[in-house]
Amino acid sequence: MSEIHRASTTAPVNIAVIKYWGKRDPKLNLPTNSSLSVTLSQSDLRTHTTASCSPSYPSSDSLLLNGSPQDVTGARTQACFRELRALRSALEAANPSLPKLSSMPLKIVSENNFPTAAGLASSAAGFAALVRAIANLYELPASPTELSRIARQGSGSACRSLFGGYVGWEQGSQADGSDSVAFQVAPASHWPEMRALILVVSAAKKGVSSTTGMQTTVATSSLFTSRATETVPRRMLEMQKAIQEKDFEGFGKVTMMDSNSFHATCLDTYPPIFYLNDVSRAAIKTVECINAATGKIVAAYTFDAGPNAVIYYLEENEKAVVGVFKAMIGGKDGWKGARGEKVEGNKEGLEAVAKDAGVAVDLLKEGVSRIILTGVGEGPEKTDDSLIDEKGEPTN
Amino acid sequence: MSEIHRASTTAPVNIAVIKYWGKRDPKLNLPTNSSLSVTLSQSDLRTHTTASCSPSYPSSDSLLLNGSPQDVTGARTQACFRELRALRSALEAANPSLPKLSSMPLKIVSENNFPTAAGLASSAAGFAALVRAIANLYELPASPTELSRIARQGSGSACRSLFGGYVGWEQGSQADGSDSVAFQVAPASHWPEMRALILVVSAAKKGVSSTTGMQTTVATSSLFTSRATETVPRRMLEMQKAIQEKDFEGFGKVTMMDSNSFHATCLDTYPPIFYLNDVSRAAIKTVECINAATGKIVAAYTFDAGPNAVIYYLEENEKAVVGVFKAMIGGKDGWKGARGEKVEGNKEGLEAVAKDAGVAVDLLKEGVSRIILTGVGEGPEKTDDSLIDEKGEPTN
Repeated sequence: MSEIHRASTTAPVNIAVIKYWGKRDPKLNLPTNSSLSVTLSQSDLRTHTTASCSPSYPSSDSLLLNGSPQDVTGARTQACFRELRALRSALEAANPSLPKLSSMPLKIVSENNFPTAAGLASSAAGFAALVRAIANLYELPASPTELSRIARQGSGSACRSLFGGYVGWEQGSQADGSDSVAFQVAPASHWPEMRALILVVSAAKKGVSSTTGMQTTVATSSLFTSRATETVPRRMLEMQKAIQEKDFEGFGKVTMMDSNSFHATCLDTYPPIFYLNDVSRAAIKTVECINAATGKIVAAYTFDAGPNAVIYYLEENEKAVVGVFKAMIGGKDGWKGARGEKVEGNKEGLEAVAKDAGVAVDLLKEGVSRIILTGVGEGPEKTDDSLIDEKGEPTN
Repeated sequence: MSEIHRASTTAPVNIAVIKYWGKRDPKLNLPTNSSLSVTLSQSDLRTHTTASCSPSYPSSDSLLLNGSPQDVTGARTQACFRELRALRSALEAANPSLPKLSSMPLKIVSENNFPTAAGLASSAAGFAALVRAIANLYELPASPTELSRIARQGSGSACRSLFGGYVGWEQGSQADGSDSVAFQVAPASHWPEMRALILVVSAAKKGVSSTTGMQTTVATSSLFTSRATETVPRRMLEMQKAIQEKDFEGFGKVTMMDSNSFHATCLDTYPPIFYLNDVSRAAIKTVECINAATGKIVAAYTFDAGPNAVIYYLEENEKAVVGVFKAMIGGKDGWKGARGEKVEGNKEGLEAVAKDAGVAVDLLKEGVSRIILTGVGEGPEKTDDSLIDEKGEPTN
């Protein structure tokens, strides 16, 4: 039996604080504006991927995600495979003693440690892990920056999951996308106190897909240009400064304003796109009340292309922020486990907030299906834990 | 007993299709962009106002609205009184035989034929009627344009209620507001087929007041400038052309896009302002489904600073538009009366729509509290029906 080549990695989810919305090149996933995100801890949210190849494999590439075969013939996945094989092929040409992995079929197995249905940014972690795992398999000397250029072609925001900590994605100006890559603004260790509470909101139905939505926004929103060309460039600088200075109030204000700006351009799209619902708005109202009660910005909401709220806060304000939500919706799934159990419900805090938040409290009680407690974390990590055994079969 | 001088008028509500949002001068209610509205029929929505004056009245001016005394010492009401008295005073100076009405206390009585609580634009009709009634009382030769300049100082959108039909409000450029006046784009008779279905949505609580909201938007929204300086000027021209050509598809598309643009700048405000709720969004979705089922734009939604939907349509499409809503929420208040009773529930239409509209149908069934059926109508009309009797007392 021929040898089975294998390599494994994990990769994180990232949640943007300056949003990616709008493609200037849909094929290459080149964005109309730069963006910036926080990489979240892989203890809570990660994709684990093993890439393998062997001449003994069936001739077509395959991908198994959470036990289900996935279509790999799409242009996005194919672009990643093609780019990675080209890099391997160059290595093989330069060193003929290397095994010809680039011409072998790929078999990839992936698992998420969180429910896909939660509507979290699973494609970012998924493509980052896919690219990183194949790069490991091929023993490519490529940097995370170089790999971010490839992962971006799989899913735009995936490029930011190649790094840990605080990560920017430079929109770039080259037509071939060569300068549209991710960069680390600061490692997680620079500001490790950053935490995130995610409120998973049961959406009545799936909204508009982000790819379709973006295209429609670019084509029809009259406010979009000013966001892409004026608002975001200014906020990218403000946000990087806030991160460098560990200024949570600056970080939080820009985070909230940029989330609102993004959803405003969605609403200005024709026909309008709504990702926020009444429960999302209740989360916004509650964060506003927590900040008002505290007298400064200690919590900052942001929403991707869906109703889930991601609330950033610093560890020192856990009681003022998470304590209030625990007192409010402590019965929901997700509080069990080391960190969630440790948080005490802050009843006085909730009382102070409930006066102003009014109906928002009831909306959250009804509309939140589960919570996730996490924080800033590291980039992809190599692992020996293989999802494919020595015979080339999935381990599960 | 001294003579009681009296004059009465009615004035209409108007609902903008290009929204007024943002003041460049809050004291004079000078807007940051022009706007355009449809004046609605006074059979359905109107303020009826009698203005009177007499040397025998108590020395301070007074206003009774729907039986409740109102504060008239506010800067807005005072500005209207002052301007109207100045015009009267000039007449009296030129013709000393005229009674000196300008120096007599004013007593004003007003009644709306619709519930104030419905969250309709009652201040527009209210100030238009107040100004028109006093102008009648003073026998001012002022044109509606001139009176619109005065009413604008009471409530910005009131200036548009001085005219019937399709009415623009030119933002103007003079610091004193002398060129910020309303003008008639077309009389109601030009396009009398324009109808409106209003879905009154029970709001959980009163939102941000429009005056406060506007100021915050101007101060904090980064997208607002592009709306005021680029989007609205372009749409003002498109909308006037659509009205001149009686092009409902053009009218409807600009109406919907401008409503979305306005609410997008509200969402882009910091902190964000939300007037639309899940029921409002259900109305948008239903209109989209009705248009999709018909294959063209036959219905156009618009939302002011609240969750109520105003849906414009042409009489010829009553079945396709109102028929569907009647089949859906025919049990709500407001269908009784000549026009509402005449409309047949369009069950087939509802079925076609319900497939796509999904949960929207249930949201509307739960969230709409009443409907109002109306259409384009005339401007203020003099009436002999006085709300103040010969002795200077309210008739009711």
